[in-house]
Amino acid sequence: MINGEKNIRYPIRWAMVGGGRGSQIGYIHRSSALRDHNFQLVAGAFDINPERGQEFGVNVHVNPERCYPDYKTMFAEESKREDGIQAVTIATPNSTHYEICKAALDACLHVVCEKPLCFTTEQAKELETIAKKKNRVVGIAYGYSGHQAVEQARRMIANGDLGEIRMIHMQFAHGFHSEAVEQENPSAKWRVDPEIVGPSYVLGDLGTHTLYLSEVMAPKLKIKKLMCTRQSFVKSRAPLEDNAYTIMEYDNGAIGTLWCSAVNAGSMHGQKIRVVGSKASIEWWDEQPNQLRYEIQGKPAQILERGMGYLYPEAVADDRIGAGHAEGLFESWSNLYRRFAMAMEALDCGETWNDIWFPGIEAGVEGVRWIENCVRSADNGGVWVEYR
Amino acid sequence: MINGEKNIRYPIRWAMVGGGRGSQIGYIHRSSALRDHNFQLVAGAFDINPERGQEFGVNVHVNPERCYPDYKTMFAEESKREDGIQAVTIATPNSTHYEICKAALDACLHVVCEKPLCFTTEQAKELETIAKKKNRVVGIAYGYSGHQAVEQARRMIANGDLGEIRMIHMQFAHGFHSEAVEQENPSAKWRVDPEIVGPSYVLGDLGTHTLYLSEVMAPKLKIKKLMCTRQSFVKSRAPLEDNAYTIMEYDNGAIGTLWCSAVNAGSMHGQKIRVVGSKASIEWWDEQPNQLRYEIQGKPAQILERGMGYLYPEAVADDRIGAGHAEGLFESWSNLYRRFAMAMEALDCGETWNDIWFPGIEAGVEGVRWIENCVRSADNGGVWVEYR
Amino acid sequence: MINGEKNIRYPIRWAMVGGGRGSQIGYIHRSSALRDHNFQLVAGAFDINPERGQEFGVNVHVNPERCYPDYKTMFAEESKREDGIQAVTIATPNSTHYEICKAALDACLHVVCEKPLCFTTEQAKELETIAKKKNRVVGIAYGYSGHQAVEQARRMIANGDLGEIRMIHMQFAHGFHSEAVEQENPSAKWRVDPEIVGPSYVLGDLGTHTLYLSEVMAPKLKIKKLMCTRQSFVKSRAPLEDNAYTIMEYDNGAIGTLWCSAVNAGSMHGQKIRVVGSKASIEWWDEQPNQLRYEIQGKPAQILERGMGYLYPEAVADDRIGAGHAEGLFESWSNLYRRFAMAMEALDCGETWNDIWFPGIEAGVEGVRWIENCVRSADNGGVWVEYR
Amino acid sequence: MINGEKNIRYPIRWAMVGGGRGSQIGYIHRSSALRDHNFQLVAGAFDINPERGQEFGVNVHVNPERCYPDYKTMFAEESKREDGIQAVTIATPNSTHYEICKAALDACLHVVCEKPLCFTTEQAKELETIAKKKNRVVGIAYGYSGHQAVEQARRMIANGDLGEIRMIHMQFAHGFHSEAVEQENPSAKWRVDPEIVGPSYVLGDLGTHTLYLSEVMAPKLKIKKLMCTRQSFVKSRAPLEDNAYTIMEYDNGAIGTLWCSAVNAGSMHGQKIRVVGSKASIEWWDEQPNQLRYEIQGKPAQILERGMGYLYPEAVADDRIGAGHAEGLFESWSNLYRRFAMAMEALDCGETWNDIWFPGIEAGVEGVRWIENCVRSADNGGVWVEYR
Repeated sequence: MINGEKNIRYPIRWAMVGGGRGSQIGYIHRSSALRDHNFQLVAGAFDINPERGQEFGVNVHVNPERCYPDYKTMFAEESKREDGIQAVTIATPNSTHYEICKAALDACLHVVCEKPLCFTTEQAKELETIAKKKNRVVGIAYGYSGHQAVEQARRMIANGDLGEIRMIHMQFAHGFHSEAVEQENPSAKWRVDPEIVGPSYVLGDLGTHTLYLSEVMAPKLKIKKLMCTRQSFVKSRAPLEDNAYTIMEYDNGAIGTLWCSAVNAGSMHGQKIRVVGSKASIEWWDEQPNQLRYEIQGKPAQILERGMGYLYPEAVADDRIGAGHAEGLFESWSNLYRRFAMAMEALDCGETWNDIWFPGIEAGVEGVRWIENCVRSADNGGVWVEYR
Repeated sequence: MINGEKNIRYPIRWAMVGGGRGSQIGYIHRSSALRDHNFQLVAGAFDINPERGQEFGVNVHVNPERCYPDYKTMFAEESKREDGIQAVTIATPNSTHYEICKAALDACLHVVCEKPLCFTTEQAKELETIAKKKNRVVGIAYGYSGHQAVEQARRMIANGDLGEIRMIHMQFAHGFHSEAVEQENPSAKWRVDPEIVGPSYVLGDLGTHTLYLSEVMAPKLKIKKLMCTRQSFVKSRAPLEDNAYTIMEYDNGAIGTLWCSAVNAGSMHGQKIRVVGSKASIEWWDEQPNQLRYEIQGKPAQILERGMGYLYPEAVADDRIGAGHAEGLFESWSNLYRRFAMAMEALDCGETWNDIWFPGIEAGVEGVRWIENCVRSADNGGVWVEYR
Repeated sequence: MINGEKNIRYPIRWAMVGGGRGSQIGYIHRSSALRDHNFQLVAGAFDINPERGQEFGVNVHVNPERCYPDYKTMFAEESKREDGIQAVTIATPNSTHYEICKAALDACLHVVCEKPLCFTTEQAKELETIAKKKNRVVGIAYGYSGHQAVEQARRMIANGDLGEIRMIHMQFAHGFHSEAVEQENPSAKWRVDPEIVGPSYVLGDLGTHTLYLSEVMAPKLKIKKLMCTRQSFVKSRAPLEDNAYTIMEYDNGAIGTLWCSAVNAGSMHGQKIRVVGSKASIEWWDEQPNQLRYEIQGKPAQILERGMGYLYPEAVADDRIGAGHAEGLFESWSNLYRRFAMAMEALDCGETWNDIWFPGIEAGVEGVRWIENCVRSADNGGVWVEYR
Repeated sequence: MINGEKNIRYPIRWAMVGGGRGSQIGYIHRSSALRDHNFQLVAGAFDINPERGQEFGVNVHVNPERCYPDYKTMFAEESKREDGIQAVTIATPNSTHYEICKAALDACLHVVCEKPLCFTTEQAKELETIAKKKNRVVGIAYGYSGHQAVEQARRMIANGDLGEIRMIHMQFAHGFHSEAVEQENPSAKWRVDPEIVGPSYVLGDLGTHTLYLSEVMAPKLKIKKLMCTRQSFVKSRAPLEDNAYTIMEYDNGAIGTLWCSAVNAGSMHGQKIRVVGSKASIEWWDEQPNQLRYEIQGKPAQILERGMGYLYPEAVADDRIGAGHAEGLFESWSNLYRRFAMAMEALDCGETWNDIWFPGIEAGVEGVRWIENCVRSADNGGVWVEYR
């Protein structure tokens, strides 16, 4: 059980780009990073509006001198300080991820980046190369993957509890954009602007989250080919889709499906993943994250509960409050930030971290690549394309 | 509320072909037909083994003289009697439906036929032509469509409660054949023998049920094109599939998806349908048939309950025991058999039945046609095919 | 699996008193009794209005000559016929059960009686004595007890799967009478008239159903003392209660609680029973009757499904359509009527039926006795009373 | 939406007594207090073993000089510092709450205390008097009451959405102590030692939590009399109960019931509350805290979701991550600690805080008083006692 005591030797000096006032995700980044003293927030370029950013920074207890007008200034100034930042989180609109991430790596900083990492596989691979060369961690904010049930699923599959994997069914389908809300709500507008979000809306914004869950749960499966069809039910969103279906064929003959949508009227999140094996299936729903359904063919379905002794040890390791108590998304993110910190410390000290996993640069690359393949299929009439 | 009193003027003299000892569906046909005195079981060719069929018939109170060795004899002999049968249910293996149905129509009998009606659209259309010419009812055993929640869904959609329909998601995915159970269980063997079941296994056995639900709920949607991919996870089943995915595009731009499977390990039935509109969605699950989930975007999700006064009158009409009490599949079938009887009586009396619907010959044709299109797509590599 | 074939040698000649047009329960009695040819409806005194009763009888295919104006005439006339009735169901208002049941037994008829059997333990025991003397079956319409999950619970407890039983929690709490609906709805009026329903409303109308489930599941537990408090939240119902709580102490130190209510606003049925043992608990809800929740301490909770091979054989014996398919209340009643028929036949033939159980006269006596004890406690300020 | 920015002017200098290594609740206190810079952990007497406490303190970044061997030393030493502590959390065994709380108030510190506040109403009222005299906040760790659904329930009831309140049903019934686990697990041993936990086990440990939820939701209801029966199903626990039932009558004629248990085999938490009004009911379950069930009589049941715009503004005020995302127990506690801080700051500045509520000293008094009344009833044979 995580008890909040010191996890790494020294808290990492950390900054944020973006995530200031009005940000939907700034708070969860900050709250999760700071949760257990693994990071210290010492600097920031929180806002495109420097004054607003400075005011925000002071409110979150950052030294006003280290509240910078933009990321370039921050990286430059901080590099001159002995106590300069060691890591940075990028929580800005999608279109800026690539350049900021590249600049951060060039400044020899560890990075935590919002997804998608960038817009093209080419860019993503470039970042991967730089990160490896610079020996830096790039953590990707696939924030649902830190739930303990996800770890349990991973261990069950690795252990063969499900038999041979035959199918993975994924969906992330909410209904909040059933109408053209972006026309009245500026904070939703950027999501459907290709300049800002890249070549897809829901595939990237939603689909990659669940896709990454499948990679965590069943890391051995590799996509061989896929087909995708996408729709803009709110017509003004075209060419960006607000709904899409993807069918994937894996190397071993297994099949994956993924439905992502922002127009699934009445649904809250609707993020679910079901992995079907030759002997049993598991199913997980991010809105009730403390439970994992386990269905062995011919036996009664079982409800596995977070924190219980019958789980795999790795799935109990992140328990913070004991079984029966509801943990939520903040704990999932905190678990990931804790692993980011451990990996950063390990790299800095020339150590390895074989025993932990986290959404790293490869996951970032894979997400971008998957979007690219989906769009290529969809824009060719929903044909099957070799995954490349 | 149905109270079981006389529904039609005279009970229809009725026989069965198949459905004898060991049949999985014979009992539900019989129980539903006889439920409310709409049919009288007066004859039968219950078994391919005449002696066993005769013994069975006597046990279900059929005059031994009217227990026939085969359907041909039955149709011939009964036609000579003044009190001969007026209707027949065909509950035999799929490969025999076409010839028996044709013979029954030729004998001027009303028919209730198990699905699929036959193996090819051509055959199906031929039967449709004969039925129309002979002025006979052909009811198809899409037994789930008689649930009151299905009627409520139909009325809600017709009334525009969901807005414009954008998506229909269907699945019928159990796990009972996750292993090659047919190798030890002869009663499962026929399901994977193309000679007996035709060109598909789960598409026909399962998928057509849920497809028909979509036709009942959203009758205006017409499939324009579709793609299908099918798998034989238990390899010995090839070329028949034990798992399949279909994506459909409707005339109006709406999208349908259908997953059918016999290898969804640990799942019981897994028959669900979700219809998503521009304003709201509904979702129904055949294992909890008394509830219908209604999700208006931006409002709390609602659980509609069978039998309640807030439902559309047509959805309460078939209530037999009052809200709160669980009705089940037998009531759904009974509702259909009651409508079959009403339609048969109406046709015989030259009346029309504008106010009721039931799965008739068109539904039978459509099921066969859909299977044919799915197989055509799947066997061409999962390409999109125009629906024809 | 029940397949609807002949269950007993000859269908029992059967009549109804009450249950005619407008009756809420007449249809389920008739439908269940006739389900599998165990009973033949040959006579009836269906209505207090003879003409309406006759018309109704004809509609349900009873010979008009055997539609009688009242039960006395029916018992007298039928006793003169060689093919006279052998059994009768009493589905009349509560206040008439005693006299009709007594008359039926005096006429040497088997009886199925609505609950409560009568108003006082003294009356109940008198009926029990007559029934034993006359060697007649008296079945009580505790219609929920025929569900397969109830049988499974009984077998699990008998087998020690739960360990020692510590608690039984019962509730039957709907909300349909949250307001004084009886003032506008005559068909609800009798339920709150002590002349017609006896000394209690919800204790008798609802509580006895769930109490009987506890007797079936844990037959060894005997109530030693109890306390009860009852309320009339709709004041015009006083002295009859529309809500009540009972706490029972059993011989072995186990505790039972029972909440019954007609003012549990927004609830449909709310009939649930949870049995807690030293090792595990089970929980069942009559609105989702095909599932039984099984929670072993320290293990994942399990959802047991009707019809599955992992259940006790006795719990699968009544399966009519296979696991996964929803059965409902009609099947539960049909299972009971089938057992009534088997018991009647056995008694007539001097046989015994050790292998079946059903709600018989003892259950009827027990229900009345329990109401009496509850009322005695409640009317003395909710004190503990020795159960007698 | 709470965004983690500064909530109060200056973070409160804060210490803990207890809550060190091995504590089940130390982490959630710390994590919640520190969540949003409202408190700074600057001192502590974390452990009865001073060395272990010191080591722990250093690990959680407390200045080693301010890690004290015991609370007395801490209060004395800190009072000498200009930057001495302003508030303290007491997370020690129950038997020590009274003396430490008293000492803290005497030292003019604000207090957050684990429940139960102490062992007798007399002690509790004494603490209340001191707190008022000293003008100090005493927050009680009823940690479930900070959930947004609880606030929503409170507003709905205040607004009359349920009509007149008729019943409140409460339960907190887990199964983790179905066996005598305390005999092998020392950390469970203290819970059943009257010297340490006082006159009750589950009534105090569990029941008071849910009782407080009822006070928050329906603050106008006042208990008039109650009856309680308690059991020691694991006999070695006597005289302390591991299971208890309480029935309460409120001033206005409403009825409350509360079941608390540590032997509800197989249950995780089982903390639920259902409030039934004359028009509608609400139901909440702490294991799925983001949903609130709302059942209006005669309408479909509704599932209200945390964070949605249709909730009362006060119920959305504490949203941290947007609807659809799962929040958990840590957010509930954080909401309470935030209110504690606001109240502490307000008192220090001579301000009032009419617009917020939190579990304060009155809630602490009420919990102790309720336990006392329950025990008095139970130990007199489960009789009704006037609430005093």
